[in-house]
Amino acid sequence: MALIVQKFGGSSVKDAEHLRNVAEIVTSRYREGNDVVVVVSAQGDTTDDLIEKAKEINPNGSKREMDQLMTAGEQISAALLAMTIENMGFPAVSLLGWQAGFTTSSAYGSARIKRVDPERIRAELSRRNIVVVTGFQGLNRYDDMTTLGRGGSDTSAVAIAAAMHADLCQIYTDVDGVYTADPRKVNGARKLDFISYDEMLELATLGAQVLNNRSVEMAKKYHIELEVLSSLTREKGTIVKEVTNVEKMLITGVAKDDNIARLSILGVPDRPGLAFKIFSKLAQKNINVDIILQSIGRNGTKDISFTVEKDKMQSAIDLLRDYIETLGATAIVADDNVAKVSIVGSGMESHPGVAADMFEALFEANINIRMISTSEIKISVLIDKADGARAVQTIHDKFFDALS
Amino acid sequence: MALIVQKFGGSSVKDAEHLRNVAEIVTSRYREGNDVVVVVSAQGDTTDDLIEKAKEINPNGSKREMDQLMTAGEQISAALLAMTIENMGFPAVSLLGWQAGFTTSSAYGSARIKRVDPERIRAELSRRNIVVVTGFQGLNRYDDMTTLGRGGSDTSAVAIAAAMHADLCQIYTDVDGVYTADPRKVNGARKLDFISYDEMLELATLGAQVLNNRSVEMAKKYHIELEVLSSLTREKGTIVKEVTNVEKMLITGVAKDDNIARLSILGVPDRPGLAFKIFSKLAQKNINVDIILQSIGRNGTKDISFTVEKDKMQSAIDLLRDYIETLGATAIVADDNVAKVSIVGSGMESHPGVAADMFEALFEANINIRMISTSEIKISVLIDKADGARAVQTIHDKFFDALS
Repeated sequence: MALIVQKFGGSSVKDAEHLRNVAEIVTSRYREGNDVVVVVSAQGDTTDDLIEKAKEINPNGSKREMDQLMTAGEQISAALLAMTIENMGFPAVSLLGWQAGFTTSSAYGSARIKRVDPERIRAELSRRNIVVVTGFQGLNRYDDMTTLGRGGSDTSAVAIAAAMHADLCQIYTDVDGVYTADPRKVNGARKLDFISYDEMLELATLGAQVLNNRSVEMAKKYHIELEVLSSLTREKGTIVKEVTNVEKMLITGVAKDDNIARLSILGVPDRPGLAFKIFSKLAQKNINVDIILQSIGRNGTKDISFTVEKDKMQSAIDLLRDYIETLGATAIVADDNVAKVSIVGSGMESHPGVAADMFEALFEANINIRMISTSEIKISVLIDKADGARAVQTIHDKFFDALS
Repeated sequence: MALIVQKFGGSSVKDAEHLRNVAEIVTSRYREGNDVVVVVSAQGDTTDDLIEKAKEINPNGSKREMDQLMTAGEQISAALLAMTIENMGFPAVSLLGWQAGFTTSSAYGSARIKRVDPERIRAELSRRNIVVVTGFQGLNRYDDMTTLGRGGSDTSAVAIAAAMHADLCQIYTDVDGVYTADPRKVNGARKLDFISYDEMLELATLGAQVLNNRSVEMAKKYHIELEVLSSLTREKGTIVKEVTNVEKMLITGVAKDDNIARLSILGVPDRPGLAFKIFSKLAQKNINVDIILQSIGRNGTKDISFTVEKDKMQSAIDLLRDYIETLGATAIVADDNVAKVSIVGSGMESHPGVAADMFEALFEANINIRMISTSEIKISVLIDKADGARAVQTIHDKFFDALS
């Protein structure tokens, strides 16, 4: 007998048929004698429909009212799931974020969970109810409804698991686990049985959209074991946990990110502080910079290149175009025909040859590397966008064919 | 400068265009310097859509979950109206039933308001916000969402007006006031400037579906002046208040109710207590009895006739069929080809000729009266359904043509 938290996303609860499927998963664990808390997102397109309705009325509606509106989405799906469970003959009760004890910061639209007081959840479990909680939402100190931002339901589930010391937190999605690469695009991609929190975090930032990053950070902080699995199959998924050294794989995954652009500022005078000025200017405008490369100075000048999200490229150019004169630089050039390909693995810390293997694979496939960035458990390269898919496949073959 | 409570029904807020119209009404009072609290129902068919969704999943979903589901309807309309008002440049904030301080009994689906603590509403008004409150809902002592039952939004509005000692409570509907008869069906029907609470209550029970009865009772109890008016015209409506004697009209309205059936139990032995037994049996099954007529006893037996709502006719027959033998009665007969026509007016208390005038009108039109029932301010007759429309017109002509 255990306490299990299960989270189901919008596509898993989108209609009566899917709700029945979810209710079967939930009640099968309940029948084993477990306490079950279920966290749900809004049904299918409900959130988008509500946003559209609001935009029609007021393109700049206040964030407070947007949250007041949006929280109705999970309220509906939670009540419907509770009724579906009731219809199968099991006792269920749905709780809104505030009823489930979620206190958040006051930032409407992107609130952070400050505290979960699971008193009510505990009371309902002690009555042997299956408890369905609305994900994505809470209450701030003004007694106003808040939302946690997109993907927030994952975080809601982990927060409940942490507050209640759950034995397991299962995140049901439309993929059946975490793969060594995107299985729809890479031959031989394999599902991982285990992955560490840190690897999962690197993969999430790299565009493998399986789990919301904040939820992984919270799971790591509170040592919550997560399982990522599909609501449509009944197969085991991938466990995300603090992987021990023995289990460490050399690399766990290959990921590609196309939503990226490279900017280069040419002929920057070789004086201290100029790089700082450029990046603080970008930070002020909320433009996140990823890979940064600074060329070795020549003739008293250097080139500074960096990557930004593709849809931030134009505003970065606009921001810096006038500024480069002040800096004494000569030009700014941009290119969004690029892709970032990365390998992630906690094993590479103790295996210095991993980077060389990756570069060799790219060399053999005649793919030109334009930038390189490394961290302790990640190596990223910037290449031409046209080479992206081929690069992922060739790197995946290099590392994973050897293992099979 | 006054405190005004305005309530808008589902058809008044059904889409962006209607929301804009409502926002114009609301802000025009706000611009005059008034404090404005707006109570809204769910948009158009939202409530029915949610019910349908629930029924598809579980035809017998628990009432608690139904309420958890349904309350999302007003949440959406309130947030959208607040955004519409914001879009016109005015400050607005939407509050859910519990945020607005509504405490109710615990009866899900038909909760009664126990208390309104308008602290939050007051705080928002003092910041010069237009406050939009979800009608129809509150919170019970288990911290669960409850609904007040159909028409409950009227009651929500009156409850706020009572708790805050509002100067005026305006109920916006799709009719522009209370008429002397249904204006779509009776020639010469006129809008009333004033009507008393008691007259309004009699008319409401008689099927003139303008105002929810509970809201009128509450308005009477707390001396809240109501105005019934249309959101589509900008005309004055009908004021519901404690009408002084001077203003008393002889009769205020003629109403017809077709949703009715007559049952007669024939040959009931003339013994004390039998009528009581019949009606307590019906009451146990929640069958409301309206007009009751008992014939004068003859040969030691009498006939007892009464009316019930049409859709309760069959269950009343089923209930009583076996019972009449136990009673020693001979038969039960039923007829749903009947209509009840009533006149209401506080003036009839001091004018004994009103009943005679009504019967005369029916006699002149050759309409047969099958049952009669009277109260201090109401006279109802049961007639053949086919005569219904003609009866209303001829009675209306009798009383109102004389006045014009």
